[in-house]
Amino acid sequence: DSAQQAASSTDPYSSDPPRHPALRVNSQKPFNAEPPSEILSDNYITPNAFFFKRNHLPVPKVDPDTYRLEIQGLPKGPMSLSLAELKSKFPKHTVTATLQCAGNRRSEINQVKPVKGLNWGIAAISNATWAGARLRDVLIHAGYEPGVKGKHVQFEGLDRDVTGTTYGASIPVGKAVSEEGDVLLAYEMNGEELPADHGFPVRVVVPGTVGARNVKWLGKIALSEEESSSHWQQNDYKGFSPSTDWDTVDFKSAPAIQELPVQSAITQPAEGSVVERSQEEVTIKGYAWSGGGREVVRVDVSLDGGRTWHVAELRSGEKGQEAAASPPPGRAWAWKLWEVTAPLPPAAQELEIVCKAVDSSYNVQPDTVAPIWNLRGVLSNAWHRVRVKVSED
Amino acid sequence: DSAQQAASSTDPYSSDPPRHPALRVNSQKPFNAEPPSEILSDNYITPNAFFFKRNHLPVPKVDPDTYRLEIQGLPKGPMSLSLAELKSKFPKHTVTATLQCAGNRRSEINQVKPVKGLNWGIAAISNATWAGARLRDVLIHAGYEPGVKGKHVQFEGLDRDVTGTTYGASIPVGKAVSEEGDVLLAYEMNGEELPADHGFPVRVVVPGTVGARNVKWLGKIALSEEESSSHWQQNDYKGFSPSTDWDTVDFKSAPAIQELPVQSAITQPAEGSVVERSQEEVTIKGYAWSGGGREVVRVDVSLDGGRTWHVAELRSGEKGQEAAASPPPGRAWAWKLWEVTAPLPPAAQELEIVCKAVDSSYNVQPDTVAPIWNLRGVLSNAWHRVRVKVSED
Ligand SMILES: [Mo]
Ligand SMILES: [Mo]
Repeated sequence: DSAQQAASSTDPYSSDPPRHPALRVNSQKPFNAEPPSEILSDNYITPNAFFFKRNHLPVPKVDPDTYRLEIQGLPKGPMSLSLAELKSKFPKHTVTATLQCAGNRRSEINQVKPVKGLNWGIAAISNATWAGARLRDVLIHAGYEPGVKGKHVQFEGLDRDVTGTTYGASIPVGKAVSEEGDVLLAYEMNGEELPADHGFPVRVVVPGTVGARNVKWLGKIALSEEESSSHWQQNDYKGFSPSTDWDTVDFKSAPAIQELPVQSAITQPAEGSVVERSQEEVTIKGYAWSGGGREVVRVDVSLDGGRTWHVAELRSGEKGQEAAASPPPGRAWAWKLWEVTAPLPPAAQELEIVCKAVDSSYNVQPDTVAPIWNLRGVLSNAWHRVRVKVSED
Repeated sequence: DSAQQAASSTDPYSSDPPRHPALRVNSQKPFNAEPPSEILSDNYITPNAFFFKRNHLPVPKVDPDTYRLEIQGLPKGPMSLSLAELKSKFPKHTVTATLQCAGNRRSEINQVKPVKGLNWGIAAISNATWAGARLRDVLIHAGYEPGVKGKHVQFEGLDRDVTGTTYGASIPVGKAVSEEGDVLLAYEMNGEELPADHGFPVRVVVPGTVGARNVKWLGKIALSEEESSSHWQQNDYKGFSPSTDWDTVDFKSAPAIQELPVQSAITQPAEGSVVERSQEEVTIKGYAWSGGGREVVRVDVSLDGGRTWHVAELRSGEKGQEAAASPPPGRAWAWKLWEVTAPLPPAAQELEIVCKAVDSSYNVQPDTVAPIWNLRGVLSNAWHRVRVKVSED
């Protein structure tokens, strides 16, 4: 809103872009927000305005005419590319990929025992069609070839805190250089130039990998023997046992989250809503996705808390559209939307609706939240449960 | 035993090899057996005699001097290799890989509601060091190169039923030809030639993939647009919803199992055993593994049915040996053995010991068995639970 734009110029957030008023804001500065969850299942491709926003720092204002992408640690020595060079020197590659925040569904973890972090609902996940240069092609341009040393590709954003520290992350080199990894230096999102909140003019899109490694406002790429030294790679975005607390945690003992586990959630009906007995049946909708390019192969839905199950219909495109061809094994980067209509159980006054997904490695979601509780509240992928009332009209 | 060897020559199983008497036999003809479970955690590399045996058909007697491996569907046309050629023409590659039967831990599924299949305990899993030619090298020798058509690599065994039907399976071509897939045509197991029960003279070893695709007594390889048409690829070894029964099952609706989900089990103490209160603590041991080359990164153990947890120590080698270097991401083919010593909870008269593993994609095991019940009783990877008594001596 205009109050925000008019904020003092000493406020590092004063040049943040305007946002859609329907977003549910978890934090204003930095801006973190998710769409109403029914928006997710109404659109196979999430509109840019509704794609969840997850910023760690103020949105940097980047001039596309003077923008340079620095590339380091490769055999041809340090080099840089302009935006025009990135667009003209490398083939444009298009990938539809779902991004999910490590903290998606943290609110359910908070209900077990409070944790540090933004209180995300179920909508810190969205799906878009990204286009840009392949990271692989840019690395090869800079001299990468098999045998070149370096286990990690580090990324630095142009977003920085008051001390000048930039956002940073890294991914394993194998993912970065693989023909099947589909990692992009994206300059388009759903056919438009990248919005400011999503990394204008260039972001990394690492399909199948936690949102945190998909660095926005990309300023630097470096091949290295080491992971990124950033706070977010080293001391955040890792999973721990429920028995680990802030007094005992050793961040070196756990790997940085890269691929995410299988996930699903119910977008409709909403928690606490009412179904009329006279309707005789209820329609349930949601999303399902898994990390690492593992395709979701089945979603089971229960109306009785998990005692009996119905198999949902899955789709990989907008409703009524023909489904896209199945991706090759290990390259299923986009979610499935699902829907099932099931008869209302006789006599039930309340339904505990539950969903759980299965991916192509037959990984499943855990039944309950408490055993996956962790001090950062990440990786929240237990069965999603929604309670609705049945009204005897 | 000798009674078995002396069986009528019309018995197709009459030339099956002798087996170690300590194995727990699930079926004699075909021979299916697992080791005592404490053998698993006592040996990082499972001795050949104790490696679980899973035969679908009689063990064929193969003469290594006349053995030919047929190769079809590749640009250079049909060809065959002798055992000597397989050993001399291609570099010998060594991989330590855990194999697990799809039906491992089926007995726990049977306790929910009986299913069709062998009643495996927790030991239809074992770990060995395999050596042989890389499938990739053999396919390239036969003319494979990027762009060659064919989505699946089919395998046929030399084992056959009374009608002449052979065992068969297939894997996706990407796994077969990838440098990182590590698929072997193995002729050695733990430094010895392959034992008869494990596929002499040549078997496929597909690291990270369900046992059923690791075809033994390998007779034929074929590149094809189609998966294997075998019963075991098409109408078996697939996962279904708990709501699917034999009246409603459509085998075409589920993908053939390839990569397996994350797994772990407790090998010691045994179910129903007794711990002395005066010992004050209890040591728990087990194994953990995940499919697709995903490394096990943590095992949590509970003494109170999953309310509180201890983090186990993991190891990747024989006890006291230095650990092998960590494998690159996605190439962790071998299990971890784990151990934890925890104080006996005061006042507890019985312990419900539980374990659950986490893999490098942060996939976890489901809490309970019933929601993953399926009509074939495969993919049984819920938390493993062992009840022991505490004696007040
Ligand atoms: Mo995130
Ligand atoms: Mo199996």
